[in-house]
Amino acid sequence: MVNSKGHEMIKGITGRAREAARELSVLSTAGKNRILLSMADAIAFERGEIKKANEEDIARAEQNGRSSAFMDRLRLDDKRIDGMARQAREVAGLKDPVGRVLERHERPNGLVIKKVSVPIGVIGIIYESRPNVTADCVSLCLKSGNAVILRGGSDAMCSNKAVYLSMKKAASAHGLHEGAFILIEDTSRTLVDAMLQASGRIDLIMPRGGESLIRQVAEKSRVPVIKHYKGICHVYVDDEADLNMAEKICLNAKVQRPGVCNAMETLLVHEGIAGEFLPRMAEKLIKEHVRLKGCGRTERILADKDIEAATDEDFATEYLDLVLNIRVVSSVNEAVDHISRFGSGHSDAIVTENTGKAEEFTMRVDSAAVYVNASTRFTDGGEFGKGAEIGISTDKLHARGPMGLEELTTYKYIVTGTGQVRP
Amino acid sequence: MVNSKGHEMIKGITGRAREAARELSVLSTAGKNRILLSMADAIAFERGEIKKANEEDIARAEQNGRSSAFMDRLRLDDKRIDGMARQAREVAGLKDPVGRVLERHERPNGLVIKKVSVPIGVIGIIYESRPNVTADCVSLCLKSGNAVILRGGSDAMCSNKAVYLSMKKAASAHGLHEGAFILIEDTSRTLVDAMLQASGRIDLIMPRGGESLIRQVAEKSRVPVIKHYKGICHVYVDDEADLNMAEKICLNAKVQRPGVCNAMETLLVHEGIAGEFLPRMAEKLIKEHVRLKGCGRTERILADKDIEAATDEDFATEYLDLVLNIRVVSSVNEAVDHISRFGSGHSDAIVTENTGKAEEFTMRVDSAAVYVNASTRFTDGGEFGKGAEIGISTDKLHARGPMGLEELTTYKYIVTGTGQVRP
Repeated sequence: MVNSKGHEMIKGITGRAREAARELSVLSTAGKNRILLSMADAIAFERGEIKKANEEDIARAEQNGRSSAFMDRLRLDDKRIDGMARQAREVAGLKDPVGRVLERHERPNGLVIKKVSVPIGVIGIIYESRPNVTADCVSLCLKSGNAVILRGGSDAMCSNKAVYLSMKKAASAHGLHEGAFILIEDTSRTLVDAMLQASGRIDLIMPRGGESLIRQVAEKSRVPVIKHYKGICHVYVDDEADLNMAEKICLNAKVQRPGVCNAMETLLVHEGIAGEFLPRMAEKLIKEHVRLKGCGRTERILADKDIEAATDEDFATEYLDLVLNIRVVSSVNEAVDHISRFGSGHSDAIVTENTGKAEEFTMRVDSAAVYVNASTRFTDGGEFGKGAEIGISTDKLHARGPMGLEELTTYKYIVTGTGQVRP
Repeated sequence: MVNSKGHEMIKGITGRAREAARELSVLSTAGKNRILLSMADAIAFERGEIKKANEEDIARAEQNGRSSAFMDRLRLDDKRIDGMARQAREVAGLKDPVGRVLERHERPNGLVIKKVSVPIGVIGIIYESRPNVTADCVSLCLKSGNAVILRGGSDAMCSNKAVYLSMKKAASAHGLHEGAFILIEDTSRTLVDAMLQASGRIDLIMPRGGESLIRQVAEKSRVPVIKHYKGICHVYVDDEADLNMAEKICLNAKVQRPGVCNAMETLLVHEGIAGEFLPRMAEKLIKEHVRLKGCGRTERILADKDIEAATDEDFATEYLDLVLNIRVVSSVNEAVDHISRFGSGHSDAIVTENTGKAEEFTMRVDSAAVYVNASTRFTDGGEFGKGAEIGISTDKLHARGPMGLEELTTYKYIVTGTGQVRP
C-alpha cells in the first residue's frame, strides 16, 4: 500500500519534472548538446568523488555477502566512468529525435496535416545495482527532451548520487531546469509504489534489472510500462541450410556472450540434416564448455556425447549461461510452433538457403527481431544503427526491439489551415 | 475479484483468439477484402433479424427507463444498418496496413535491417450500448490482421449478437478461423475483470464508451489500454487574428456538433482584441443558444449580455453541450499555461496571422492535435485521411489522436544476413 506521505513526495517530484518537461520540449539541439558535453566532462572530472562513493557501496555489498556478479555490476572503475562520459558525448553526437516530420499531407480542403515527433514527457526509470544506468538514462532522456525520474537500488545509492551530482552541476551551470532529472534517494518500497500509481503525472516507466523487479513493476503499475522480461532466443537450422554458416551462427549465438538476453537458449534442427549437423555442432559446443540438453531424437543422434534430456521447463528457461536445449523438428512450421509456444518474442533466427522458407519463418515468428542467416546477438541498439539504447522491448505497443532515442519520442499532429471549418 | 471460472473462460477464449491471430497475420489482402465484402452483404441481407433483435433491446431499455440519448445510441434503423455494411465495404477498399516497410537500411557489416508493420495480435474491445461498434471493430481488426474479443454492454446484447452472427456466417463461408472475432455474451463484471487480467494473452484493450467505463478499465487493467477520457478543447484567438476567421472557427468548434469530444469547451481571447471580438462573438453564440461562462474580465466586457462566472471547475469540465467558458489572457504563453492546466491533450487551436506565435503555440501545447487557423472539429480519422477510425487516443504511447488501421499495427525487425556473427 502507498501511504499519503509517498504520494505527497511523488506529487512534488512529478510536479517539478512536468514543469521541466515543458522547457525541455522546446530546447534547441545545440543547447541540449552543450549540456551533454559538459556533463561528460563533469563525470570525468569528478571521477575521484565517484570512485570514493562507489567504494562505500562496494564495502556495504561485501558486508552483505553479495555475489561476484552483483559486485561486478556495481563496480565503477576508470573504464566504466570513462564509458559513462563517452556515452554522454556520443549521445550529443546523435541526431535530435525531436521535431522530425514523420508524415505530411494536404487534405482536399486545403488543411496541411503534419505528424511531428515530440518528447513523451516524464519518464520514470526503476533500476537495480548498475550505477552507469543513472548516467545513460539522463543522457538519453535529455537528448530526447524528456524529464526523467530515477529510482535506483539502495545498494548503489552512493554511486548513483555521485554520478547524479556531477551531471547536475554541469546542467545547472547551463541553467537547465532543476526538475529535468531527479534522483529519488529514498529507496523505500513506498516511494516506488507511489511512482507506479502516478498515472497522468509520469508518462512512461521503464524498469531495468532482473525479471523479478520487472514483473513487480509491470504487475503493480498504472503508468504505462515498456519492458522485456527475458530473451529465450532460438536458432532454427533448416535442411536447406549452409551447414558451415549454421555452425558459425549457432556458436556465436550461444557462446560469444551467453549471459545476455539475445543469446541463443534453444537450437532447433531439421530432421533432414540433424544426423549430419548435430554431431559436428555438438563437438564445437562441448569444446566451448556448453552443457547440452536434448529432445529424444537429439539424444539418440548424440548418444555418444554427454547429453541430458530436455524438459518443457528447460525449453521455457532463460539460462543466461553455457547451457543449450536442442530439439529436432520436421519442418519450418514445427519450428515456428515451438517458438510461439516457448519463445519470449525477443530474437529468433532461421538458417536456410531457401528464400521461401526464410520468408515463411520471418512472417510467422512473432518476435521483435527475426533473423535470416545471421546471429541473434545483433539485437542491440548500437548494432541496429540507433547509436545508443535505453533498453529492449518485448512488448508490442509503442516500441518493439531495441529502443533508442527515436523510441523515446511520441508525436503530435500539427494542422495548419486558412480558416477551415467542418461542414 | 475474478473467480476462477472467469479466468478459465477467458483462457479458453483468448486461446482461440491467439490461434486465429497467427492465421490472420498471414492472410492475403485479397482474402481479407473478400471476407469484408461478404460481411457487408450479410449485414444488409440479415437486416430483418438485426432489427428484430434490436427491438428486443429497445423494449428492455424502455422498460428500464433509459434516457432518450441512450435509446438513440442503441437504435439500429435501416440507415445505421446500411452504415455498418458501408463501413465494412469502405474498410475493404482501404490500404492493407500490414507488411508496410517502415524503414530499411544496410549496416556496414552487410546486414539488411527492415522494420515491417505487423498486426498487434489479440485486441479486446469493451464497449457500452452502441451495437454498430460491433461491426466497426470486427471490420477494422480483420483488415489489420488482428483477432478481436468483443465485450459489449448487456443493454445491446441482442443487437450485438445479431450483427455478430450475420458477420460470422459470412466469415465461416470463407473458412476464416472461428477465433478471429469472438463476442462474449456473458456480460457479468467477472468476465470483464478476467479480460483485464489477461496480460500476455490479450495484447491491447480499447474501452469505448463513457468516461466512467474508461476509468474503470484503465484503473484495473494489466493489459495495455489505449483510450481517451475526454476532450476539453480550446480555441485561442490571438490579438493578431483575422477576427472574421476567428468568429467562423469558434462558431464551428462550439455549435456544429457540441456533443462530441473535439468540440470547443473553452474560448481564450487575447486582451488586445477582447473588447472588439467578444461582443460580436457572444452575439453569434447566444443566437445559437450557447450559454456563456466567463472570467472576470469577460464578464466586464460582456456586462450587457447574459453571462455567468466561470470557476476553475468549469474550466475543467467537458460540457458536451451548448455551454462555453471564456477567459481573457494577456499572451500566447498565458493561453498555453491555461491549456496545460485545464486541457485534456485532445485538440486545441490558435487563430493568428503571426506565424511566430503560431509556431510557439504548436510547439508548446502538448495535445494530440494542435491547429492553426482551423476548427478543432477536424480531429477525426476520416478528416485526417485515415479512412476509418477505431477511436481517438489522448494517451502518448503507441498512438495519439485519431486511430485508423495503421495504428492497429505494431512492427517487427526482419534482419537478413549472409552468415554474419557478432565479433
